[in-house]
Amino acid sequence: MDSSGYIPKNQDRFLAELCEFMSFASVSAQEKHQNDVRACANWLADHLKNMGLTVEIIKTQGNPIIKASMGKGLRKIVIYGHYDVQPPEPLELWQSKPFEPEIRDGYLYGRGASDDKGQLFAHVKAVETLIKQGIKPDYEIIFVIEGEEECNGESLEKWLVGAGAELKPEAVFISDCSMYNEATPAITYGLRGICALEIGIFSASRDLHSGCFGGAVANPAIVLSRMLAHCVTQDGRIMIPGFYEDVVPLTDQERETFAALKHDDQKFAAGLGLVRPFGEACYTTLERLWARPTFEINGLWSGYSGPGNKTIIPSSAQAKITMRLVPNQDPEKIFEFTSKHLQEICPDTVRLEIKGPTGLAPGVLIDTNCSAVQTTQSALKAAFGNEAVLIREGGSIPVVASFAQQWQCPVVLMGLGLAADSIHAPNERFKMDNFLKGIDASTILLSSL
Amino acid sequence: MDSSGYIPKNQDRFLAELCEFMSFASVSAQEKHQNDVRACANWLADHLKNMGLTVEIIKTQGNPIIKASMGKGLRKIVIYGHYDVQPPEPLELWQSKPFEPEIRDGYLYGRGASDDKGQLFAHVKAVETLIKQGIKPDYEIIFVIEGEEECNGESLEKWLVGAGAELKPEAVFISDCSMYNEATPAITYGLRGICALEIGIFSASRDLHSGCFGGAVANPAIVLSRMLAHCVTQDGRIMIPGFYEDVVPLTDQERETFAALKHDDQKFAAGLGLVRPFGEACYTTLERLWARPTFEINGLWSGYSGPGNKTIIPSSAQAKITMRLVPNQDPEKIFEFTSKHLQEICPDTVRLEIKGPTGLAPGVLIDTNCSAVQTTQSALKAAFGNEAVLIREGGSIPVVASFAQQWQCPVVLMGLGLAADSIHAPNERFKMDNFLKGIDASTILLSSL
Repeated sequence: MDSSGYIPKNQDRFLAELCEFMSFASVSAQEKHQNDVRACANWLADHLKNMGLTVEIIKTQGNPIIKASMGKGLRKIVIYGHYDVQPPEPLELWQSKPFEPEIRDGYLYGRGASDDKGQLFAHVKAVETLIKQGIKPDYEIIFVIEGEEECNGESLEKWLVGAGAELKPEAVFISDCSMYNEATPAITYGLRGICALEIGIFSASRDLHSGCFGGAVANPAIVLSRMLAHCVTQDGRIMIPGFYEDVVPLTDQERETFAALKHDDQKFAAGLGLVRPFGEACYTTLERLWARPTFEINGLWSGYSGPGNKTIIPSSAQAKITMRLVPNQDPEKIFEFTSKHLQEICPDTVRLEIKGPTGLAPGVLIDTNCSAVQTTQSALKAAFGNEAVLIREGGSIPVVASFAQQWQCPVVLMGLGLAADSIHAPNERFKMDNFLKGIDASTILLSSL
Repeated sequence: MDSSGYIPKNQDRFLAELCEFMSFASVSAQEKHQNDVRACANWLADHLKNMGLTVEIIKTQGNPIIKASMGKGLRKIVIYGHYDVQPPEPLELWQSKPFEPEIRDGYLYGRGASDDKGQLFAHVKAVETLIKQGIKPDYEIIFVIEGEEECNGESLEKWLVGAGAELKPEAVFISDCSMYNEATPAITYGLRGICALEIGIFSASRDLHSGCFGGAVANPAIVLSRMLAHCVTQDGRIMIPGFYEDVVPLTDQERETFAALKHDDQKFAAGLGLVRPFGEACYTTLERLWARPTFEINGLWSGYSGPGNKTIIPSSAQAKITMRLVPNQDPEKIFEFTSKHLQEICPDTVRLEIKGPTGLAPGVLIDTNCSAVQTTQSALKAAFGNEAVLIREGGSIPVVASFAQQWQCPVVLMGLGLAADSIHAPNERFKMDNFLKGIDASTILLSSL
């Protein structure tokens, strides 16, 4: 498609622009970065305007949504992405600074490199390529880019049932996930849902000397540990009553499809530095990752974590929990089951506080029998050189279910990232080759829809 | 004793001097406060020198020990104390700054107020009172004041078996504990020992996205929670094999003595803001606090604890643990039992690291049939107006066992603090009345031994 060589000719500028985009600390979960989030939205809006798109900055009660389009009046397609990023902590584990992007060995490092600034920007630069090459698709391309994907996504959800409801595109394209592996592009047709909450256990009104008071005061860190131990077994089976009641078993067909991908468990474990793979008995690694629910502690804190000893009974202990859900599990119901279970197993020597749900999204399965998916498969093959496989993913993109439900159209997830991109972790990165091939794939897709 | 009224006449200056002593952030567990620890030692040495004592600053591999004496050549008694303090964190919970002492409602607030600067300084000012009143005891008074009580106490232990071995006093007096209650002075004849360690659980080599990897990677925070849940039951009974094998059961006599103190459980719980008292079945609160061993989590940390969600599987989870031991339990043996148990219950999906022991001390029981104890009881009664009861305490003062063993003499613990002093916690305080009555009690004691 890129016969004029526009992409290779401009690739240095594309990368420099992406670095500028990534230099905003647009951490939506952290109050202190509110101004950075705004500045990032404004930069992106200006960038799209300068490219020749009609841009609207949609004000919300949270972070603005950017809507940018070309081809008004034609039938519509939407490209979705998000300009906010995960918190960068723990900072000391970054090799280069999270908001000062650095290129090392063919990778671009920095927070948001892969999730989602880099993947989104591939589509932005594809649209620029179309414009500069004078290609005019016979449909309207509409970017919908939000700034709350990493916190709660509330503003987009509200917009979607409000002003956005009438948009009704014929398809939505999203790059906010991964290829199957470095050589194999993929379309993700299934996502897990999520239910997030926080647990707080409160004992004495202040930290107490563990010698003077130990033995006669409930230790909230012990209470919390014991409660968490009663939520999930050693191999990851969830002990919350009712949790599995709506889980649809994997079909034989799906198990065969997953097995055909020949996942290399040993390589997977070695790549992550694991002693050995882990998970529920009677399921393969791909099944555990893509089609089984989980219970995870994302954060746990109580008492003193500095150097040396501090001999206290902490006054409180807290945990951040997320559960990944599979299609057909109702996140609200799971939150109720979990709350009830926690209340039942909490001893009467402490106070229990449940904060949440701090995030809720159902799992999604997308029908792959449609031209949007098939055209995307061809575009990915043309750009990356290999067949694009159909896969599921363990992560949650809450908005996918909302798009599908609201607009009743295919939502095509064309991942440009890699599993090793360290998203949500220190040293997040994006393979530069994937960025450039991604621009190519998107250019092909948008010209051939 | 204080017939000249020297103490009330000088009390404002005594308090001002104590405030100056407390203004040093002599936190021995934290590297960053090393200079503050030194400065505090030098201030105290100068202060004792200016009072007329012969002062020696004993250099060690850690923090200096201050030895200050008067009456050389006579038979000896030792007054022990420590000039180092606990870390002040969490800072945001202090009403006034930890190292800017403040007087409110008859209490002096600040880190070290009660543990141990205030209690030690009562003896210092008692010695000044003796000197200024021209009283010359017929024995040498030797202060031995260390700066590592709140970290590891190593330097004093080394000195005690080295240069200090020959000192051989007839008795050691220590104020680093509490009265039985506000009205009732006490001599503590029993202390619990301690065994401290840290546990680290390591899974993937970096934090992982809980969606992309959840279900196939062991979550170290869950592993740690489950392991801790297998160390102690809901009511505080320790599950480590062998843990109780050397515990000597309480005698009927001791249980009666404890019961006679008529501990008010409801008041105890209400004063600490507890929902209800806690502890091992079949034991009273005083028995649980003074004569039963415990397993406590002092700190627990893993993953993300900031605002909002961060959907990760943390790469590690850690805990700081202290166990309080009773006399006859061997701390080394307990550390071995605990390490073995942790290794046995740790699943093979993660790496376990045990750091420690980071603190070890045996429990202590002191024979109360000696004149040092009886004279102290009389002095406390004279100063505080009420009979001094014989009690045990749940805390550990590792050096007590070492003094008793090395010098084969009585070690008399005359607590001037109160249980509500918030030692090791935010808003530590010392009742000013206890400081002044403590000076009086020490003056009486030192004149009548």
